[in-house]
Amino acid sequence: MASDEFDIIRRHFNRPELAFAVPSVSLAIGDDCALLQPSPGCELAVSTDMLVEGVHFLPDCDPFQLGQRTLLVNLSDLAAMGARPLCFTLALSLPGSDAAWLTRFTAGLARVAGEHHCPLVGGDLTASAPPLAGRSGPLCLCVQVHGEVPAGTALRRSGARVGDAICVTGTLGDAAAGLRILRDGAWPTLPTPLRESLQQAFHAPQSRVAAGMALRGLASAAMDLSDGLASDLGHILQASGVGARVDVDALPLSEALCAAVAPQERLALALGGGDDYELCFTVAPQHLSVVQERLAALGTRVCQIGQITPGSTLQWWREGRELALKLRGYNHFHREGESA
Amino acid sequence: MASDEFDIIRRHFNRPELAFAVPSVSLAIGDDCALLQPSPGCELAVSTDMLVEGVHFLPDCDPFQLGQRTLLVNLSDLAAMGARPLCFTLALSLPGSDAAWLTRFTAGLARVAGEHHCPLVGGDLTASAPPLAGRSGPLCLCVQVHGEVPAGTALRRSGARVGDAICVTGTLGDAAAGLRILRDGAWPTLPTPLRESLQQAFHAPQSRVAAGMALRGLASAAMDLSDGLASDLGHILQASGVGARVDVDALPLSEALCAAVAPQERLALALGGGDDYELCFTVAPQHLSVVQERLAALGTRVCQIGQITPGSTLQWWREGRELALKLRGYNHFHREGESA
Repeated sequence: MASDEFDIIRRHFNRPELAFAVPSVSLAIGDDCALLQPSPGCELAVSTDMLVEGVHFLPDCDPFQLGQRTLLVNLSDLAAMGARPLCFTLALSLPGSDAAWLTRFTAGLARVAGEHHCPLVGGDLTASAPPLAGRSGPLCLCVQVHGEVPAGTALRRSGARVGDAICVTGTLGDAAAGLRILRDGAWPTLPTPLRESLQQAFHAPQSRVAAGMALRGLASAAMDLSDGLASDLGHILQASGVGARVDVDALPLSEALCAAVAPQERLALALGGGDDYELCFTVAPQHLSVVQERLAALGTRVCQIGQITPGSTLQWWREGRELALKLRGYNHFHREGESA
Repeated sequence: MASDEFDIIRRHFNRPELAFAVPSVSLAIGDDCALLQPSPGCELAVSTDMLVEGVHFLPDCDPFQLGQRTLLVNLSDLAAMGARPLCFTLALSLPGSDAAWLTRFTAGLARVAGEHHCPLVGGDLTASAPPLAGRSGPLCLCVQVHGEVPAGTALRRSGARVGDAICVTGTLGDAAAGLRILRDGAWPTLPTPLRESLQQAFHAPQSRVAAGMALRGLASAAMDLSDGLASDLGHILQASGVGARVDVDALPLSEALCAAVAPQERLALALGGGDDYELCFTVAPQHLSVVQERLAALGTRVCQIGQITPGSTLQWWREGRELALKLRGYNHFHREGESA
């Protein structure tokens, strides 16, 4: 069922469930630009993420889950700044115009958009079947999210200080394990509920937007975990000019991960697996109990995993001794797996 | 020469020529989000465009020209709203990490960014060679531009009124002819300077940012021409609830286009060819002379091509008689060429 791009936009994207009106958006889909009006005294936080078929998601993945995930991983960047979501734009390069696929994909987007009061306000739709030359390209999605945060209160990566506690929300490694199940059929004997909870961690990562906003004025630095703690924590250390000591036995691991994965492999998934989209933040010791209370009130698990140290190295400790771990996060231009 | 993504960002993108500091950006590359501070009393204009190899540009195109074009076509959306550029983000899915290619590509971006005081403030870099499944994808670029415009003064598509003059900047059809030369080797006997001027219209469309800003408070509606006048003018008519009568003999055609192309084919390129990135706008008759003066002062050619009429139809006229033209702009999901 071929449609033209304006039909597709009208039927699938410019719908009240997805492109709903909000006060901070004065002009949305249908013009050359969208027009936003951030609240007075606020800064605008913007972030973009591209998801490519075969790189960030499997070619046969469920379009509803892809729609959810596409927006969730972008909202995670707003969460990491403590910003409140305002709206998003979406550029898609589509291999075709499959109405059933688009219906499910936009339903997944709309579920997350509605939950976060973050409407679609514009975008760009192209066919990846190339009229100029070559073969058809993969499905490619690019979201840009816009949020706002009172000026001066955004959680940056650069504020960690020696002595600060290092904390993470949720549990680590589940999404990486879920991807192994989806892609490789790993751990076939794992009971179905545990299997599904790991897969779900990949498909629909927890949104930490409320947690990020609750950390304003308390956390000294924050970021979201997309490439794996081993790689991502390094960015906070580098931006802040500090080191860290992490107790690997304190890493929060889920029941499902522990049931599925042998102890040594757990560490590789939790530290190097990526796709967690949990927050990693630092907080001065005197603020730690307030942080714990605020996140508990949101139902968000939080766990101290280490401490900021002088110097610039990231050390992994277990039972009072340093571990010699060689861990890397996902790197797009190396294609190395994790190794522990 | 493999590099990791952070190396590539540092070496090629986070450079002072491209990611320079401006007062309205309080945090740029290197955190989870960029932070913007639009001027008080301004609305933020945002637009996104995805460019896919084989769809929007030829696989063997010059990376410097691609860099220029990638940003220019996005700035064109700001121009169409009368917005002043603030900054942009860039998401790329790259087949590899070719340093020479990246150097030329970012030099093209930087030329346009510098000219428009519009720095790169963030983005996302992924490898399109897929670790999960399938074959390597095409190069895919997604830019989002941010601009600002005093609240209430943005040029929308919806303000055209019966009796308004319809105007376009520059000349039409050159980029479409340039693409025919680049792709098909069309018009091989055309003198080199004319040939090059048509190709250049495709590679580096004129930026109409200053013209767009000059039209604030004067134009009743505006948009930029990306799919061809026949398709794009329809959007203004639909958004404004009006019709139009266009005099095809008044269409501004370049000397190069007239030298290359037979009269009947000229019309197809000028009306349905796309990629012009000129502004099409409407203006009440009493403001027309001021518009002409302001654009002349900027060195921007402007031409009245018709008038807004009651009703909802778009009529093409020549020598006092209506022409029966069947024209379509580029449609991503039909793959029809232009026909006249």
